[in-house]
Amino acid sequence: MTAQYSRALGLFLWVSCLRWAEGGKLLVIPVDGSHWLSMRGVLKELQVKGHEIVVIAPEVTALIQEATFYNLRRYPVPYRKEDLEVSFQWIKNDPFEKLTVWETFSRTIERMKNNSDLLFTACSHLVYNKELMTHLEDMYFDAVFTNPFLPCGPIVAKYLSLPAVHFVHGMPCNLDLVSMRCPNPSSYIPRSFSGNTDHMTFGQRVKNMALTMAQVFLCDFVYSPYERLASELLDRKVTIVDLLSHGSIWLLESDFVKEYPKPVMPQMVFVGGVHCVYKKPLSQEFEGYVNASGEHGIVVFSLGSMVSEIPMAKAMEIADALGTIPQTVLWRYTGKPPSNLAKNTKLVKWLPQNDLLGHPKTRAFITHAGSHGIYEGLCNGVPMVLMPLFGDQMDNAKRMESRGAGVTLNVLEMTSADLSKALKTVINDKSYKENIMRLSALHKDRPISPLDLAVFWVEFVMRNKGAPHLRPAAHDLNWFQYHSLDVIAFLLAIVLTVVFIAVKSYMFCCQKCFGKKGKAKKAPKSKSH
Amino acid sequence: MTAQYSRALGLFLWVSCLRWAEGGKLLVIPVDGSHWLSMRGVLKELQVKGHEIVVIAPEVTALIQEATFYNLRRYPVPYRKEDLEVSFQWIKNDPFEKLTVWETFSRTIERMKNNSDLLFTACSHLVYNKELMTHLEDMYFDAVFTNPFLPCGPIVAKYLSLPAVHFVHGMPCNLDLVSMRCPNPSSYIPRSFSGNTDHMTFGQRVKNMALTMAQVFLCDFVYSPYERLASELLDRKVTIVDLLSHGSIWLLESDFVKEYPKPVMPQMVFVGGVHCVYKKPLSQEFEGYVNASGEHGIVVFSLGSMVSEIPMAKAMEIADALGTIPQTVLWRYTGKPPSNLAKNTKLVKWLPQNDLLGHPKTRAFITHAGSHGIYEGLCNGVPMVLMPLFGDQMDNAKRMESRGAGVTLNVLEMTSADLSKALKTVINDKSYKENIMRLSALHKDRPISPLDLAVFWVEFVMRNKGAPHLRPAAHDLNWFQYHSLDVIAFLLAIVLTVVFIAVKSYMFCCQKCFGKKGKAKKAPKSKSH
Repeated sequence: MTAQYSRALGLFLWVSCLRWAEGGKLLVIPVDGSHWLSMRGVLKELQVKGHEIVVIAPEVTALIQEATFYNLRRYPVPYRKEDLEVSFQWIKNDPFEKLTVWETFSRTIERMKNNSDLLFTACSHLVYNKELMTHLEDMYFDAVFTNPFLPCGPIVAKYLSLPAVHFVHGMPCNLDLVSMRCPNPSSYIPRSFSGNTDHMTFGQRVKNMALTMAQVFLCDFVYSPYERLASELLDRKVTIVDLLSHGSIWLLESDFVKEYPKPVMPQMVFVGGVHCVYKKPLSQEFEGYVNASGEHGIVVFSLGSMVSEIPMAKAMEIADALGTIPQTVLWRYTGKPPSNLAKNTKLVKWLPQNDLLGHPKTRAFITHAGSHGIYEGLCNGVPMVLMPLFGDQMDNAKRMESRGAGVTLNVLEMTSADLSKALKTVINDKSYKENIMRLSALHKDRPISPLDLAVFWVEFVMRNKGAPHLRPAAHDLNWFQYHSLDVIAFLLAIVLTVVFIAVKSYMFCCQKCFGKKGKAKKAPKSKSH
Repeated sequence: MTAQYSRALGLFLWVSCLRWAEGGKLLVIPVDGSHWLSMRGVLKELQVKGHEIVVIAPEVTALIQEATFYNLRRYPVPYRKEDLEVSFQWIKNDPFEKLTVWETFSRTIERMKNNSDLLFTACSHLVYNKELMTHLEDMYFDAVFTNPFLPCGPIVAKYLSLPAVHFVHGMPCNLDLVSMRCPNPSSYIPRSFSGNTDHMTFGQRVKNMALTMAQVFLCDFVYSPYERLASELLDRKVTIVDLLSHGSIWLLESDFVKEYPKPVMPQMVFVGGVHCVYKKPLSQEFEGYVNASGEHGIVVFSLGSMVSEIPMAKAMEIADALGTIPQTVLWRYTGKPPSNLAKNTKLVKWLPQNDLLGHPKTRAFITHAGSHGIYEGLCNGVPMVLMPLFGDQMDNAKRMESRGAGVTLNVLEMTSADLSKALKTVINDKSYKENIMRLSALHKDRPISPLDLAVFWVEFVMRNKGAPHLRPAAHDLNWFQYHSLDVIAFLLAIVLTVVFIAVKSYMFCCQKCFGKKGKAKKAPKSKSH
């Protein structure tokens, strides 16, 4: 009875501290694309909690649209929807072209430069939109909620002197870790694009270290325009690390079921799978497909929000493979249907991926291994055939494969037979289902859902005006001090001085002792001349 | 409506994964003393969840006693209660004796050696108690819940091949961090007994680094007997780091309101303040004291569970100071009452510390700065006068003082006037109350209470047979590989080889180009001879 009473009182204490004045104001500066979709779910929940949410976006966007649970404020940009589509066209073509390593590298750099130039234009048109910026200033927001992948939000947050919550899967070149001063040993933490796992041979560790060093320069061309823009706006030298380290809390769409365990910082909150929580019943159309699939069930096939059509030769190869399995395949595909499409394959312009993956009749998931897809596969426990196309997708695929939850294919080199074999393997070899179910259970076995956690930390930053108690003092040290190189040099100098004095004293003593004898012996000699 | 539906479904998903078969079996191997008191609270909650809890303790203990919510199984040891009391007597005397630095150091080592010898005896009498160990083996526990401060629990866990949850405030010599492979830069993370904060001068950083190096040897005398015992029992070489790194989850009685922010590992769960949750109404006796205190309220004074009496001279000095404030002082004191005790000071043999600190009439807390007391002061928002006596208490006091939540006194050197001034300062200077209230709010502003978090992770380890997905691959590297020294040496060798070849080639070219000219110039000379 006493225990119950005291627990009730205790719970009350904790719950009472979670209550918070309704009506906070949140400024949201998202990045367009699939990143936005998870962020949107968190906003929906924040609005339910009574906060006023203002989303700022350029006039031209791919996925950001009006909604009832936030106010969308658009600003003019000097490009059209078609320009945006053209600039992202490469994502649909490049992964299917045979290129040399050098061509792949130089083309990726070129494409990324073009994309980031366009998106940077949007950012400069936001921060130099005086009317809008003044309006934002006058609204007295409590915090900025932003995706720092393109660091326009962090610039605005710094300019408005508002605390920021960063929401991102991860930053290129480990800029998130650098800006949080998070240790990141290259000996067991695989670098992006390395293809390594957390257990590496000596050769792989050399590659990992080389990539670590290369990273210092690789991201420069994407982020230096933002550094210049921020420096102009804030009237002092600002680096990308300065901008990112302004973030009070980092909500990372990641967890240690997908990622390899590694050091983290207290500011890092892991909300991988945050978007999986939302589930709706299937529409009549999809319910029909699933019911008609019989005992064999279905396979869900999507290459993500950006790649809904692929070159015909590859599409025919894939269609051929899909025809070899007894399952019904639901393929998100907007291009011209391949002529060899089998009866079991249904092309759809869009599919409710998470809801379909959650259906007990789903046997496998063919995915491009984007982090959203990976988490939907994980949440719902569906074995995967992974066809990474670009970016971090190779690494995501590697992680799932190394845990026995999927089979990775090289989309360029795979044959129809390879895909057919991979599908049959993940569907019929029970170990894949067992492994993904084990991972799924682990992923969901948390003390609090990732959505509630994300909402809590956004509100935390709003009510506490940041989280300075989680900011390590490492920010106030330069790299030399951080690694204690000055202290090591000082201690070494002392040791060397002591050794030097000791050696000198010893030699002096030797000279005194043996030198005299030597002299004594030599002296008669000199006399004998 | 849809949002509500999908949220409800989402919540159901998360909640359903938290349900777990009742009737797990937990083996608890605690460390006696104040550590036990927090652990006890977690056990109470685990029993409510339906688990069978078996606590193993020696026949002779200070605080571990029978309770309704666990089965206490005692085992015989070759010492008596009096021996235990004698071995801890020094805690009551030493802090009040004037000693030189060397005397303090050598005496502390001697005391700790005596204490740890006694407690080690208990451990060896457990692991060599064949009947008991066989019984434990036959019980098929799901996990071991233990305080690894004295690593008897980790030895038993390893022997029984059971996953372990470690519950501790922190390990001496940073052994917890070493065994989890948690980075711990000495440039901004103050070492125990350094008196540093997270912002250090060059000199302080040198001291911090020196202490880091000294730590390697300092703990050896306490833990080497356990290493030998474990090696004998497991029939292979076992180090203290091996024993500790067996822990699946570390529940750390700490948080970043008290501690300075620093890197952590995914296995570390912060449950600082876990014991504050339990609150009971005051008994009639204490309710009477509080009510009679009038508008001035009360001051709570306790030097912890181990120090309930102190030398008379010091007691009189303290009593003198306590008489100078208008508040009623409740002092936990079992010694002979000082003759100068003022009317406002009530001596009590025991006091409900957390309940009293939670009373709105409490104005200040005089504490020895043990981590339990610190968290009770923090939870309840009471400014503190800190009188650290030994161990980590100096560091705890430093942390609270550096945050403006208390005043630290040197118990040996302080005068009656110092204590009086410190008390008046924390009671009358509003900044202390404001600071502790701000810290208190931050401490309680968490997505889940520390007690629920502790219970969740113990159950997690029980149902998942450990948490191998949180174990970093760093465990499989030696220190040379971990720091990539082999890779750096290899890359340096390549660079040096390239430089060597380049210089040699350049010199060869120079010789070819200028050498000929030189020769050509020299040639005529030789001819001119």
